[in-house]
Amino acid sequence: MQPPRRSKNPSNRDLDRLRSPDEARATILARVPTLGIERVALHQAPWRVLAEDLIAPEDHPPFPAATMDGFAIIADDGSPWREIVGDQMAGNVIEQQVTPGTAIRITTGAPVPTGADAVIPVEQTEIADDHVVIHGADLRPGANIRPVGADLRRGDHLLTAGTLLGPAELGLVASAGLVPVPVRRRPRVSVISTGDELIEPGERVGPGQIRDSNRFSLIAALEAEGADIRWAGHAPDARGPLNTLLLDRIASDDVVITSGGVSMGELDLVKALLVELARVHFRRVFMKPGKPFTFATAGEHDDVLVFGLPGNPVSALAGFELFVRPALATMARRTGWERPCVPVTLSHPVRPSDRIEYQRATVRVHPDGYVTGATTGGQGSSRLVSWVGANALLIIPPRESIYAEGERVEAMLLGAPYGPA
Amino acid sequence: MQPPRRSKNPSNRDLDRLRSPDEARATILARVPTLGIERVALHQAPWRVLAEDLIAPEDHPPFPAATMDGFAIIADDGSPWREIVGDQMAGNVIEQQVTPGTAIRITTGAPVPTGADAVIPVEQTEIADDHVVIHGADLRPGANIRPVGADLRRGDHLLTAGTLLGPAELGLVASAGLVPVPVRRRPRVSVISTGDELIEPGERVGPGQIRDSNRFSLIAALEAEGADIRWAGHAPDARGPLNTLLLDRIASDDVVITSGGVSMGELDLVKALLVELARVHFRRVFMKPGKPFTFATAGEHDDVLVFGLPGNPVSALAGFELFVRPALATMARRTGWERPCVPVTLSHPVRPSDRIEYQRATVRVHPDGYVTGATTGGQGSSRLVSWVGANALLIIPPRESIYAEGERVEAMLLGAPYGPA
Repeated sequence: MQPPRRSKNPSNRDLDRLRSPDEARATILARVPTLGIERVALHQAPWRVLAEDLIAPEDHPPFPAATMDGFAIIADDGSPWREIVGDQMAGNVIEQQVTPGTAIRITTGAPVPTGADAVIPVEQTEIADDHVVIHGADLRPGANIRPVGADLRRGDHLLTAGTLLGPAELGLVASAGLVPVPVRRRPRVSVISTGDELIEPGERVGPGQIRDSNRFSLIAALEAEGADIRWAGHAPDARGPLNTLLLDRIASDDVVITSGGVSMGELDLVKALLVELARVHFRRVFMKPGKPFTFATAGEHDDVLVFGLPGNPVSALAGFELFVRPALATMARRTGWERPCVPVTLSHPVRPSDRIEYQRATVRVHPDGYVTGATTGGQGSSRLVSWVGANALLIIPPRESIYAEGERVEAMLLGAPYGPA
Repeated sequence: MQPPRRSKNPSNRDLDRLRSPDEARATILARVPTLGIERVALHQAPWRVLAEDLIAPEDHPPFPAATMDGFAIIADDGSPWREIVGDQMAGNVIEQQVTPGTAIRITTGAPVPTGADAVIPVEQTEIADDHVVIHGADLRPGANIRPVGADLRRGDHLLTAGTLLGPAELGLVASAGLVPVPVRRRPRVSVISTGDELIEPGERVGPGQIRDSNRFSLIAALEAEGADIRWAGHAPDARGPLNTLLLDRIASDDVVITSGGVSMGELDLVKALLVELARVHFRRVFMKPGKPFTFATAGEHDDVLVFGLPGNPVSALAGFELFVRPALATMARRTGWERPCVPVTLSHPVRPSDRIEYQRATVRVHPDGYVTGATTGGQGSSRLVSWVGANALLIIPPRESIYAEGERVEAMLLGAPYGPA
């Protein structure tokens, strides 16, 4: 149990001052703690964030290797046929050497025997008894041999701390034998839906009720960011149990996300409790959708992040995308996580609002090579369908006049643009 | 145990005929079975593939809802202040009605009481005793009310079978109460590394040995595609145990992936066994990297897919990207999975090879709005570092002359392009 933090909080007036999205994000990122490091087996490391720089501990390949199945020979030997004096398979090193007039049969990936300086592919040979006849001329020294260190030199920078470990990165770690792998601990997150009107999706809707959807949207969004979801459910509707739940989650998790109950109403339990349990940093952002958005810190060390997302489904996802996702990536000190912001050409006129608006959109690369953007239709903050199929958010600053078809605006890419229509 | 299928296989000559990447892909996709359907709870459904079309079972919202905290009133009432006759919170419906000269206090998301036709936001009001004074004029009927069915009408098409269930899609499913959710079963996959030169990443490298990396690259790639990896390890190096392992995996799984041991060597156990255990469809593709690539089908119903990837790490990943990933997506009848192919402008000259080459590249959107592409450096098929940071494959068809800086080529996007440098 920690002492109430009421005294640390600024006035309601200051908390409710509208922040720009940039200011809101900077306030959050300045307060993000760094997750600890754990060392895991390779099969547990996919899509985790590397926690340390990795240096190649040795040359790769560690021996000159054949890149084709064929025969190891001396390139300038001159003789049209050679005596086959041995077999060099992958995985060991034979003692036999290649001398003028001889050849050693070799498989792809096997070490090139001493004396040989080229590999002739099997397709360019013909075998007669214990001899190999070579077709085609001008085989140069070094042909079809990958020299020591061709891919990586000992001491080469292999991967930088903060890299997400995808297929290629994990292969490099495995190949260098850098196990166990130092990765950031996954952030522990809880998701609390609030609102007396919410029922479980499997229940029958009564008068004035709707089904909870934000909890499940947030679970999907959190999974994509590698979060460890420790608790997800509906908030109790009484002050005491909700207070206990919030204290429990703050004590256990790195991030506590609530949805709903952060607008201007007076009857808001979460809003009232957060002011007591946490240090609230701001409650409103000058954006659309998602103006009501609470950010607070809590816990013994004031390092548990509390995000109060709006209840409208689109607003909640926009808040997650703009503020929660950056916080999660930054906790892991991940690099390259930022959504690229790129110029796109509007496919139709767009009417601005009085706040910076993030319109769900599809962007595609035009056959002429530039990127175009079109919104997904009605942009109401409860219209979740507007996010289906969207691969970008158009960033529409407020202004007097309508944005014209053909005008250039910025888009935040949520994924790859589509190809030409 | 199934009978040997040797008789079903075409000649070595036909199997080794070079297929174009398009022909190879078409051959594979024509033989892909469809995974079964399972019904799962919402928290198990993120990033699964929806298996049935979903129709909205009711209007959403199901009642006219306040979009702001404030007072439900009659817009054309005319009186500058109204008597507060009740409180309408979210989650229930009060019996009290709004009549001329009265108002009911209402919270965001609550049902608008009978008689009211507008909601005045709390910010535009002032409360005096049991009355509310309204500031600001011209409140129109319908203001700040979301009418029944504003987001979705009963019978509206909600989501199409084949959709990947991300945050917005899952929120829609939850909101419509369509639980449990019909999704495709995850494909069961095994990964078998072959090659006598391979050791485990934690082991010390002896003469002629290298550490297995493909197994771990493939695990990461498979996880991103939602596969259920049932077995991953190094192949036994004796014919009998390898035969048993292959038969076991073919009997248990939907997809069996091997890496290594598919080149032109004579000593290749996997290659020899596949001809006996499976129906081999082709073994070589006219592409770089990844020319040696085996596709076979096996099992009692000939519907288990067997992919023999090359041993070189980059070739293995290219084969996965071009052939295995499309097969996995098609098994789930997923829609929209294809990597977009878009025109990009080369940032430097590119030398073509004698085959269609897929060069690992970074693509970015230029400040002028078009997309540029640059390769990641040396494109050797063992140089896994060339895949690190790549967000596209440049598709470079063979031709006599060098591709010039500024020339336009196609790129297959693996993710979002980077923003302007």
